Amino acid sequence: MTEHTARTATIGGIAASPGYAIAKAYRLQRDEIKPVQKQVADAAAETDRFRQAIGKAKAELKQIHELTRQRLGEEKAEIFEAHLLLLEDPDLIDVAMEQIEQDNVNADFALHSVAATFIDALLAMDNELLRERAADIRDVSGRVIAALHGAAYTTVSGVTEESVIIAEDLAPSDTALLDVNIVRGFATEIGSRTSHSAIMSRSLGIPAIVGAGSSLMDIETGTMIILDAVKGKIIVAPSDGELEQYRHIQEQYEQRRAELAGLKSEPTVSADGAHMELAANIGSVEDVQKALDNGAEGIGLFRTEFLYMGRSALPTEEEQFNVYKYVLEKMDGKPVVIRTLDIGGDKELPYMKLPKESNPFLGLRAVRLCLQEQDLFRTQLRALLRASRYGNLKIMFPMIALREELRECKRLLQEERTKLIAEGIEVAERIEVGIMIEIPAAALAADQFAKEVDFFSIGTNDLIQYTMAADRMNETVSYLYQTCHPSVLRLIRMVISAASKEGKWVGMCGEMAGDESAIPLLLGMGLHEFSMSASSILPARAQIRSLSRQQWAERIDSVLELGSEQEIKQVVQQHVNS
Amino acid sequence: MTEHTARTATIGGIAASPGYAIAKAYRLQRDEIKPVQKQVADAAAETDRFRQAIGKAKAELKQIHELTRQRLGEEKAEIFEAHLLLLEDPDLIDVAMEQIEQDNVNADFALHSVAATFIDALLAMDNELLRERAADIRDVSGRVIAALHGAAYTTVSGVTEESVIIAEDLAPSDTALLDVNIVRGFATEIGSRTSHSAIMSRSLGIPAIVGAGSSLMDIETGTMIILDAVKGKIIVAPSDGELEQYRHIQEQYEQRRAELAGLKSEPTVSADGAHMELAANIGSVEDVQKALDNGAEGIGLFRTEFLYMGRSALPTEEEQFNVYKYVLEKMDGKPVVIRTLDIGGDKELPYMKLPKESNPFLGLRAVRLCLQEQDLFRTQLRALLRASRYGNLKIMFPMIALREELRECKRLLQEERTKLIAEGIEVAERIEVGIMIEIPAAALAADQFAKEVDFFSIGTNDLIQYTMAADRMNETVSYLYQTCHPSVLRLIRMVISAASKEGKWVGMCGEMAGDESAIPLLLGMGLHEFSMSASSILPARAQIRSLSRQQWAERIDSVLELGSEQEIKQVVQQHVNS
Repeated sequence: MTEHTARTATIGGIAASPGYAIAKAYRLQRDEIKPVQKQVADAAAETDRFRQAIGKAKAELKQIHELTRQRLGEEKAEIFEAHLLLLEDPDLIDVAMEQIEQDNVNADFALHSVAATFIDALLAMDNELLRERAADIRDVSGRVIAALHGAAYTTVSGVTEESVIIAEDLAPSDTALLDVNIVRGFATEIGSRTSHSAIMSRSLGIPAIVGAGSSLMDIETGTMIILDAVKGKIIVAPSDGELEQYRHIQEQYEQRRAELAGLKSEPTVSADGAHMELAANIGSVEDVQKALDNGAEGIGLFRTEFLYMGRSALPTEEEQFNVYKYVLEKMDGKPVVIRTLDIGGDKELPYMKLPKESNPFLGLRAVRLCLQEQDLFRTQLRALLRASRYGNLKIMFPMIALREELRECKRLLQEERTKLIAEGIEVAERIEVGIMIEIPAAALAADQFAKEVDFFSIGTNDLIQYTMAADRMNETVSYLYQTCHPSVLRLIRMVISAASKEGKWVGMCGEMAGDESAIPLLLGMGLHEFSMSASSILPARAQIRSLSRQQWAERIDSVLELGSEQEIKQVVQQHVNS
Repeated sequence: MTEHTARTATIGGIAASPGYAIAKAYRLQRDEIKPVQKQVADAAAETDRFRQAIGKAKAELKQIHELTRQRLGEEKAEIFEAHLLLLEDPDLIDVAMEQIEQDNVNADFALHSVAATFIDALLAMDNELLRERAADIRDVSGRVIAALHGAAYTTVSGVTEESVIIAEDLAPSDTALLDVNIVRGFATEIGSRTSHSAIMSRSLGIPAIVGAGSSLMDIETGTMIILDAVKGKIIVAPSDGELEQYRHIQEQYEQRRAELAGLKSEPTVSADGAHMELAANIGSVEDVQKALDNGAEGIGLFRTEFLYMGRSALPTEEEQFNVYKYVLEKMDGKPVVIRTLDIGGDKELPYMKLPKESNPFLGLRAVRLCLQEQDLFRTQLRALLRASRYGNLKIMFPMIALREELRECKRLLQEERTKLIAEGIEVAERIEVGIMIEIPAAALAADQFAKEVDFFSIGTNDLIQYTMAADRMNETVSYLYQTCHPSVLRLIRMVISAASKEGKWVGMCGEMAGDESAIPLLLGMGLHEFSMSASSILPARAQIRSLSRQQWAERIDSVLELGSEQEIKQVVQQHVNS
């Protein structure tokens, strides 16, 4: 009689890839090889052994690369090219080789200690990207060390029946080798929503929970578990009642998913025939594919900050140009709204010395900073202009409060365009230029701005924060951060109607655009483009197809007379359900 | 031939009390007595000598007290009662006495060393109030030490002809003894706008510059100087041209002052006969007299924070009651708008552990905090209610964004009123209740709030900050802090017209209310009450008396169509000058 995990227990974690899995646990525990320092008599023989192990690891990685390319595409496979390069990296391999030769130590110890130095240095940086890089080095060196010991490195291949995998963490090569036909989901002890295993789980489309904590590894292989990667919890040894309940939930979930998947290539059109555009907010090159996979009709917000962060110097014009070009080409003529750099405030760049501010959200951010650091800004504008001929580019300036700021941005853009043309470089003849409406001052003067731009995109995350005077990151005032507060809705209506009068289009790229209690109101106000995280697009499309724009337009005035968010949400709910 | 300060030099400083003075410098340099430790043979004789010196100092202080009472009134004289009490303070006097007896040291050394301990401890606190207290101890002990040495302590009495006094700092007893018939102004090396000498200069109504730095004391007695306490500069040994120029400026200034003084008891009425109310913003009990002296028709904003700051525990209900009662009685039936506590954010209370916030201006402040710390809030509400029957009290809640916040504030007020009445305590039957409009959300929902309050007071300092998303304390974004930005003016118009529809009055208590380029616009929009620092009241009254409200009302719509603050200010200037 086993006494482990006999009774139901629930473990919480971060839902990294949504969905449900009900299956037996498979605990993945790599036999950790902890190399011990030994003296070797023949250093030359040891370096030979090292070279052979590297060769074996390379062969395995090539196989994994090919497998991943077939299953997930070129882009996801790239990580293994990086792993292969690591096996040729002189700082890692040559240094270990020298250690073997000079100190007559064993190869596994030499590699392990060189790798450890790297890993420790990277982890000390407290940077998500570098942490991932540390995981890569650990993964690759572990593979070589396993080969030196004649052990199998990859253990996920041991999974032979339907399982939910439980592991401390999954290495990139593990996730790539997961057999999605039998692996129903996974949970890891460590990790965050943006860690490699979390990203891979979303690519593979399997439910996953990360950062579940150390109690996760108490689950024995073979124990029945429910992985609820919607709410972020793992039910260990569930009761029959729980199993039945979750099988029902899972079925409904899958049915809904199938329905939504059917909308991927459908147009976004309201029940009374009005056409909208559903676009995706992206923050990196990798997000483009996900946007397309979720039926995005465009990119409504491309945050360019990632180009500037997690590195030691400013990105060059060429680097930026390549990224913009790639995204524009990938979107193949669909609109791509690229926002110029929104750095400063809470987002710092280590290589730019920005003054410490008492209230960074009310400080030197975005265009305020760019207009001060004009070289940085001009480089980005040049890269955008050069990329413009590869797709349907629209340029958007963030944090505009004054007409003079917009005019200065447009002047710099025009200057760079003129210079490029003089240099003989081709630039698209017409590029739409718009601004974020995220400062109350800009919303209140939308009639004036509408005369000088091609479009607006309402950035509700900041707009709400300033309108309510409540830091959206501050828990103690979170009750004030109200998406559907009458004042917020009134500002939005003001912006949309001001733009309509000038025949300009209005999008929204804050989280509100994907919020099901806000969508009916936004539709009624005449919002044209809704930009949101990719995963919200299909549900939003389904919702819009069920709503009559005309009916919601008729309701708006009376809804905006209500005195609180609560009353407004109630009314929306009533009509949606009726 | 003297070579000091022969050529013109200019020294900058802080204008503490506005005006001009042109006269010879009189350098006040107290012969600093630095007591040296000596052994005394007869400790009893030394304590006798000490007692006599204290007696002499007391006699002098009583004289100064009486003189000050006659010249500046009871309140300003109170400081010398405090000085007299210091001479009976056992921690100072008895401790020094013991030192004389036990160590057989000289009295001046004993007193000096005990006082120094106090002074150092107080200065180490980095608190303006305690720093003043240190100055008091220095002043009093210096007087006793001078008496022990048989020296005269007060040196200002040495001034016998028209002079501008130059000093390192002026002790309270110095300022009290200045003969305003011959002292034309003064300048000090140290000090800030709120230091004792600065406050006294304003009470005496003589021009003063403080914090002028160490080069000030290079000026020799007898050197001609121009004290420009409007711009904050001292011109040493001016040329004939400068003298002529400044005599002209001074004449115009005095003429203007006389004109304004004539308006002190006049009504605030526009050229076309519309009545306004000009009120004062006050931050302490002392400010009330100044408000009345400047012709204030009420208190438009009484900031109650001073009651809570610079102390070690919350003020009691009784303490608060006494302060509110005093102000209400002193204002003798004129309206007094008292704002409930606006603490949190950048204003900290050492005895309340508030969480450190990333963006305090967007954090837990004012009513947000009061509704969380209800005991603190109820104490203030009770004190206000109890004081209500002593004058024309209006209660105002700051930082209201949600209707629910206002309702909760009103509910607590009603509860405390009911309790007080049940306790048999008299409360005014009708107390107006209003809110600050300082968050864009409140301005945008002013039509809804107007139904639930008696009045609004627009707090432009914060309203502009949130509307423009620019920290008003942050130099790097100060170009965004625009009083007359079209969006700011549009919000203000929205608020005033929403209130008018409900028949409620609207005041303004931000600095904008006293800004001469904004006043014509505010008048045109129908603002009823303008509350500002006392010194701005008479100039504002003069301006309003020259403007036609009707004409400005007719211009407002076209002014608010302009696209920038600059254009708006230009148009206002044109009309004002035409």
